[in-house]
Amino acid sequence: MPEPRVLRHRILGIDPGSRNTGFGIIDSDGLKSIHVASGCIRVGDHPWPERLGLIFDRVLALVAEYRPHEMAVEQLIFARDPKAALKIGQARGAVLCAGLKGGVIVHEYSPKSIKLAVVGSGNAEKPQVQHMVRVLLQLDVEPSEDEADALAIALCHAHSMGIPARKRAAASWRDWRLG
Amino acid sequence: MPEPRVLRHRILGIDPGSRNTGFGIIDSDGLKSIHVASGCIRVGDHPWPERLGLIFDRVLALVAEYRPHEMAVEQLIFARDPKAALKIGQARGAVLCAGLKGGVIVHEYSPKSIKLAVVGSGNAEKPQVQHMVRVLLQLDVEPSEDEADALAIALCHAHSMGIPARKRAAASWRDWRLG
Repeated sequence: MPEPRVLRHRILGIDPGSRNTGFGIIDSDGLKSIHVASGCIRVGDHPWPERLGLIFDRVLALVAEYRPHEMAVEQLIFARDPKAALKIGQARGAVLCAGLKGGVIVHEYSPKSIKLAVVGSGNAEKPQVQHMVRVLLQLDVEPSEDEADALAIALCHAHSMGIPARKRAAASWRDWRLG
Repeated sequence: MPEPRVLRHRILGIDPGSRNTGFGIIDSDGLKSIHVASGCIRVGDHPWPERLGLIFDRVLALVAEYRPHEMAVEQLIFARDPKAALKIGQARGAVLCAGLKGGVIVHEYSPKSIKLAVVGSGNAEKPQVQHMVRVLLQLDVEPSEDEADALAIALCHAHSMGIPARKRAAASWRDWRLG
């Protein structure tokens, strides 16, 4: 008999930015994922250091409201512009601190592995990611770019977390086929 | 009669780094500054995202222990290496979030204005900064590089804050000289 699929993990995916920080929350057992909430934290109108405090506060509020088990963030390996890297780095620092302070385990995934997990190609374009996020989570409307990126990160973590479950599902299908 | 010099501001200077974050606390009225505490938050042995949580915690603990009125951080305008910029940006994000969460007003100064305030030249070398910090704060021993940088940032804020006090002092000297 296959194991019952009761274990639902709540995952918070975050795409940090110095003006807009996308967030996406999903429930998943590694095989199937459902959309819980998603949106964008907009802080572009505030003066600089204050923006970091706002990002920190709002991520912490998301953690308090939705109580995710884990948080997933894109691993930034490379940035072309050092000035932009400094700003995005600070926003990322605020996001990770909020996650750690909220008691959530933080995972990092490379941009390539996120695209690979969601679209099936490490070189996928943004509109492909948006489309596949909509399909995988059965959303009525196309999510915004920031939202889609954050949900893609959450889906990537769900898929990597689901590898043992996927193996079990494949094994039970094989057992059934072999009778 | 000159105004009595009673107003003492406590300033926390921070030099964020992904491995070592220097800190320096001084009391100042803008004309004279005294050393309260300084040191280095070392997190290099811990895995990456955890380091940010540690920096956040320790800066928040410094704020709770010493109750500074203001915090001063170097304004990073330029970084040669985008990878390093991303890491230092995240550490800086953790530091600023801790300051903002601790209810401290955050100020930023360019590297040039810090050197100018402490050494008198915007192109000063690190050993000159270390030496002048030791002289200005009458320290018995030479501070470490991270400590000296953090104390220099605090002194820069003290000096900029002290411009009205300096003008008053100059005026009272002129009044005395002119009888």
